[in-house]
Amino acid sequence: MTELVISETEHKQRLQKIRRQLSQRRLKALYLVDPTRILYATGFSYLPTERPLAVVIPEDGPIFIMGPALEYEHVRQDARLIDEVYAYPDYPGKEHPIKYFANVLNTKELGKGRIATDSFEGAAGGYGYRGPSLSNVMRNARFLDGRDIIDKMRLVKSNSELRLLRESAKWSRTAHDILLENTSAGSWDVITGVRASLEGLERMLKQLNGSYRQLKWALSPLVVGYRGQVGPESAIPHTVFTRRKIRRGDVLVSEAGVEIGGYTSELERTVIVGKPPSKAEKYFTAMLEAQTSALKTFGPGVECRTVDRAAKVTVQKLGLEKHLLHHTGHGIGLEGHEPPWLDPGDFTVMKPGMVLSCEPGLYVPGYAGFRHSDTVAITKSGMSFITEYPRSLEELTIR
Amino acid sequence: MTELVISETEHKQRLQKIRRQLSQRRLKALYLVDPTRILYATGFSYLPTERPLAVVIPEDGPIFIMGPALEYEHVRQDARLIDEVYAYPDYPGKEHPIKYFANVLNTKELGKGRIATDSFEGAAGGYGYRGPSLSNVMRNARFLDGRDIIDKMRLVKSNSELRLLRESAKWSRTAHDILLENTSAGSWDVITGVRASLEGLERMLKQLNGSYRQLKWALSPLVVGYRGQVGPESAIPHTVFTRRKIRRGDVLVSEAGVEIGGYTSELERTVIVGKPPSKAEKYFTAMLEAQTSALKTFGPGVECRTVDRAAKVTVQKLGLEKHLLHHTGHGIGLEGHEPPWLDPGDFTVMKPGMVLSCEPGLYVPGYAGFRHSDTVAITKSGMSFITEYPRSLEELTIR
Repeated sequence: MTELVISETEHKQRLQKIRRQLSQRRLKALYLVDPTRILYATGFSYLPTERPLAVVIPEDGPIFIMGPALEYEHVRQDARLIDEVYAYPDYPGKEHPIKYFANVLNTKELGKGRIATDSFEGAAGGYGYRGPSLSNVMRNARFLDGRDIIDKMRLVKSNSELRLLRESAKWSRTAHDILLENTSAGSWDVITGVRASLEGLERMLKQLNGSYRQLKWALSPLVVGYRGQVGPESAIPHTVFTRRKIRRGDVLVSEAGVEIGGYTSELERTVIVGKPPSKAEKYFTAMLEAQTSALKTFGPGVECRTVDRAAKVTVQKLGLEKHLLHHTGHGIGLEGHEPPWLDPGDFTVMKPGMVLSCEPGLYVPGYAGFRHSDTVAITKSGMSFITEYPRSLEELTIR
Repeated sequence: MTELVISETEHKQRLQKIRRQLSQRRLKALYLVDPTRILYATGFSYLPTERPLAVVIPEDGPIFIMGPALEYEHVRQDARLIDEVYAYPDYPGKEHPIKYFANVLNTKELGKGRIATDSFEGAAGGYGYRGPSLSNVMRNARFLDGRDIIDKMRLVKSNSELRLLRESAKWSRTAHDILLENTSAGSWDVITGVRASLEGLERMLKQLNGSYRQLKWALSPLVVGYRGQVGPESAIPHTVFTRRKIRRGDVLVSEAGVEIGGYTSELERTVIVGKPPSKAEKYFTAMLEAQTSALKTFGPGVECRTVDRAAKVTVQKLGLEKHLLHHTGHGIGLEGHEPPWLDPGDFTVMKPGMVLSCEPGLYVPGYAGFRHSDTVAITKSGMSFITEYPRSLEELTIR
């Protein structure tokens, strides 16, 4: 059974494309510290910590990684496209890892010349990390911002990326069905979420069995739940916790995401527990109308801001503009949020293969929030749903 | 029932301490973008995204936050110590948020003078964020590295912080018991982990009920499982996925962590499924001996590197040094890893109130990994366990 990951062949093509760009721009190497960029380029996934780790893709010659000893076997076993591993004992160490990195780069004849990087520091940082900046330690090299080399490649998804996103959405739908079956007044949303995630994960692993491979650490690679968006708290788009149990009459906002080969789609729904009050119906209908208007505008050649405009105009006509608290959506792929943005300030022209969320939301402080989020792919002739799931009030009411 | 969080009084004391330092160093304000530092200083927790968000603590005058409109109500409702909120529509926006921030700072008379910050960029970044650097936009202000103002305060935990860490450890023990009860040959470790997490969470919410408040978003604030550290994969300290079901004879490495008021302790155990083979017994015993030696050295006035040295010497005597792949431990609190480090390069002198993990590990490539992790607090006379849990081979063998 084929594994649900990007193939080695496709990673080789990505690396070739990166190297062609290095050559064209007369750059000697691309120095990467961001885990997502490293995953995109090489297929290697790891747990980022305070310990510096960098992958170097020279314009020519072996690709190498520099990192802590605890990753040595991990790289040897999992990262077949990384040719060489240079390991330091640990951070902070008797010698700082950045100095060790500089020495390795010198022996590789990368001590001078133009090097593209996604971090002038030379390390991703975090967890109280401190260190000298690599660009200060290596005075003879000239470091240039190389983030876009990979980030621009990520904007348009390949067929395999789309396949993984569709597989992700398939299990999100299953998970969301299970969530709705498990949702009732009197329960904690967080418990309902973990229970539905467990049941969804069991089904997924049973069916996919050996072909599924989790690439990013999480308690569960399948996540479904309400993230505290229960009743009045659903009016806080980014609330982080559960304040009380679910009650009859509550408006809930759900979210479902499943990591497949590193990629995750986004499926969110406004759910009502019990007969919807007319107030809830009014906002639900307006939100749905706004999402429908936005969905109609997606297509190749259209600017991202146009989609946002469509949602906003619909809401304005209904006199509800003050309830819009964020733009209409964002790109999605290896990360949950990626460029481009469905925002008045984003003039990016959509192309076939781009994948975006569509999620205009209406928020009524103290009462409730109303948001559906769907993931869509731009096609040659328009768009297609990655997440295909009921959107109507009737189908999303829990009787 | 008192909520299991840091009190408003303690946050006020932290803010006073920060302001005293600003005053002493003739700094006009502390500008923060890191979510953990913001949580430590103000108690406000949020979901970081590409949208810039900053909290500004002036040496004198109202504390304010600048962030996206979607956080406006959230701040008003949850962050009682933040006096004012300045919100921009969304990112990237017609006007870039960093320019909006600069304008707000100018109206606050913070457009010139010395400002401490944890980000010269003015934004935490991530998710493809791009923007002008705040320090470039505000040419008349002088930004200085202010990370240590808060990070040094975090090194020594207060009594309330210790209480939250002990509560975290209490539920980690319960969760770990449930994990062991659910572990058996023939099952996926990830399923076992999610199931045990669900059961642990149900018990915790039932007992703590209204006093529990999740501060950081996660599918479950209680996490217990093996993180793919199953059989040969347990030899990869930071493996990220499950390759096969658990088999009889497997060595497993577990982990349990529960977020209480933002704080998480660390409890990890080496677990054997079925009668331990003599090879496993040998490494288990050596690892246990190394951990015991390290545990004996903790105490006020002792350098961090001394603890690491104790573990290493024990392992060297047994001729197993090549199986040590990382140092002995790390600080822990609001983040899973924090300074100081139990590492040859860390000369920090331990003080009462410091909290550290103690986890020397032995890794045999292709066979198995052996690591217990305990969280300990430094006391006036020595140390005390935060995690108190069986450590012997017999107690950790699943028959």
